[in-house]
Amino acid sequence: MYNLLTQDGKAKRGELHTVHGVIQTPVFMNVGTIAAIKGAVATTDLQEIKTQVQLSNTYHLHVRPGDKIVKKLGGLHKFMNWDKPILTDSGGFQVFSLSGLRKIKEEGVYFRSHIDGKKIFMGPEESMQIQSNLASTIAMAFDECPPHPATREYMQASVDRTTRWLERCKKEMDRLNALPDTINKNQMLFGINQGGTYEDIRIEHAKRISEMDLDGYALGGLAVGESHEEMYRILDETVPYLPVDKPTYLMGVGTPANILEAVDRGVDFFDCVYPSRNGRHGHVYTDHGKMNMFNAKYELDSRPIDENCQCPTCRSYSRAYIRHLLKAKEMLGMRLCVLHNLYFYNNMMEEIRNAIEEGRYQEYKKAKLEGFQL
Amino acid sequence: MYNLLTQDGKAKRGELHTVHGVIQTPVFMNVGTIAAIKGAVATTDLQEIKTQVQLSNTYHLHVRPGDKIVKKLGGLHKFMNWDKPILTDSGGFQVFSLSGLRKIKEEGVYFRSHIDGKKIFMGPEESMQIQSNLASTIAMAFDECPPHPATREYMQASVDRTTRWLERCKKEMDRLNALPDTINKNQMLFGINQGGTYEDIRIEHAKRISEMDLDGYALGGLAVGESHEEMYRILDETVPYLPVDKPTYLMGVGTPANILEAVDRGVDFFDCVYPSRNGRHGHVYTDHGKMNMFNAKYELDSRPIDENCQCPTCRSYSRAYIRHLLKAKEMLGMRLCVLHNLYFYNNMMEEIRNAIEEGRYQEYKKAKLEGFQL
Ligand SMILES: [Zn+2]
Ligand SMILES: [Zn+2]
Repeated sequence: MYNLLTQDGKAKRGELHTVHGVIQTPVFMNVGTIAAIKGAVATTDLQEIKTQVQLSNTYHLHVRPGDKIVKKLGGLHKFMNWDKPILTDSGGFQVFSLSGLRKIKEEGVYFRSHIDGKKIFMGPEESMQIQSNLASTIAMAFDECPPHPATREYMQASVDRTTRWLERCKKEMDRLNALPDTINKNQMLFGINQGGTYEDIRIEHAKRISEMDLDGYALGGLAVGESHEEMYRILDETVPYLPVDKPTYLMGVGTPANILEAVDRGVDFFDCVYPSRNGRHGHVYTDHGKMNMFNAKYELDSRPIDENCQCPTCRSYSRAYIRHLLKAKEMLGMRLCVLHNLYFYNNMMEEIRNAIEEGRYQEYKKAKLEGFQL
Repeated sequence: MYNLLTQDGKAKRGELHTVHGVIQTPVFMNVGTIAAIKGAVATTDLQEIKTQVQLSNTYHLHVRPGDKIVKKLGGLHKFMNWDKPILTDSGGFQVFSLSGLRKIKEEGVYFRSHIDGKKIFMGPEESMQIQSNLASTIAMAFDECPPHPATREYMQASVDRTTRWLERCKKEMDRLNALPDTINKNQMLFGINQGGTYEDIRIEHAKRISEMDLDGYALGGLAVGESHEEMYRILDETVPYLPVDKPTYLMGVGTPANILEAVDRGVDFFDCVYPSRNGRHGHVYTDHGKMNMFNAKYELDSRPIDENCQCPTCRSYSRAYIRHLLKAKEMLGMRLCVLHNLYFYNNMMEEIRNAIEEGRYQEYKKAKLEGFQL
């Protein structure tokens, strides 16, 4: 159950109560695609970097190790030793982005595994079954993530199908949650709003899915190639038609600046691979912008990445050491950068929550964005 | 200063007092070649896996990031955030093993960097200077690690030169430790016994270097291709001619069984890359032998690697999860296996110390070796 605690402008400060604990929002979910955060980060590390929610990818886990294996092992929580909330995506995005060969039909999508080329079929029911096997806290509805750009005609037909798929997802989840051997019988379902950059299609779709009384609502198909301004415009237009008293999730977004802007438009759930991906490349976040830890100027720099940061990396290691590790291709260099970056995101979300609570979100956002430009 | 606390047969239980704390022996030093343990293991992790001493490689640190850089940053301890003892090797072994192009002269060795092909000269003085810059707790003397096999003539000439080099090392270290800007003015020097499998050359050399009153004595040039039995024979013959009241270090050795046998012959310092290298390949140690974590039989195995192990990996993760990570090439899989393996070695050393103290080393060794055969 979601409690909207307070709002500062459109910015929401909420709590989502789940069987795996309470999520304080706005929240950034840390992406562990195949049940592990890339960069040698374990769930035991997540406890130290303010992670609230771990996100895993249904498609990846379906092909390896297999959701039935995970179910036999007691579900994702037990598999990866994480007792806090987990959100699984529907697999849809990966099916559409990873798979060259695919056929979309009313019943679902036929495609080939990116690992062994094996034929796979996934529709709304299959996605729900896989996510039920994984036993995540929150399951995402199976949707089509339409290409960008797409014609208006294609988009309308796709969104209509996504709505029909959502109805099937809901029905299937209700069935699965009632089965005696389902691990998480309280699994929640978030629906996904689509429509590309056609705001009228977005709004119409938002209204339709809002009537379905789901546990939360996501905006999908953004950050797929359109400009930031276009994305913010779509949020301005669409979010007001999603229920304010439910979680509002902007999928796959984004930079710290994107998050600050989206919170301002009423979004309170986020996920993105940037902090771990950038960390693996030695790019780290600070309140004064990004740093490239490969830079020669850090060779003799004995300061931590960020002198104000309380992450495990900054508490123990210098820029000079991290640069050395990265240059020598030691995995530890990547791990230290990823830990710092995830902490940076999670800590920023905490700052955001405090700012909203104290009614100074605009002020906070302005100062933070200005800092990034330094 | 070394205190020999007790002996059980030839097995020594000692304490080496250093400026960076006391080392309880027998000890296994954890190899962090370039100031980091391979497998994304940080010095903060070492605190949790019973590591007493970290070993780094002089040659590697000389070429990257450069020992002068490390000195400017306050020495290796500060650089890698580790306040316990560090031993650095002399660089000799790497010069002889990594470098195809090299010329050995009385003054030292001319060779090319394995990174950029740059010409480098390293002799006893240079090795001591680099190790002084690194400011390790214990420096190793610069020696020639002769090829195996080598003629008797070559070996005798090489060992004689190694003795002359040792005298130069000692003189240079005395000079360096007296300089005002030396970071660790209490750096210790271990000499290295050579002689290949010629026991008379080994014994003669052991006698000569024993007279030099060094802080410890190592056996080098073993585990370079000779059989285990030959190595044990050389230990049987040579160790009695090294001072019992000084640390006795068998360089680069070895398997758990090798360590158990060498302790029995009076050795009490060890180092080896096996636990981290094997861990990165998914091979893990247990009291019942090694396990290959890629094995399909672990797919649904929810037990830890070793149910009796108290390492960070076994306390939190299952065989099934680790296998999944390794198969998916997630760095975390390697990290978890390396942590377990290092803990296994460090914990075995603790068991060895307890067994010696309690006068039951033979019994302990027998049971442990039998377990490995299971
Ligand atoms: Zn940090
Ligand atoms: Zn273990």
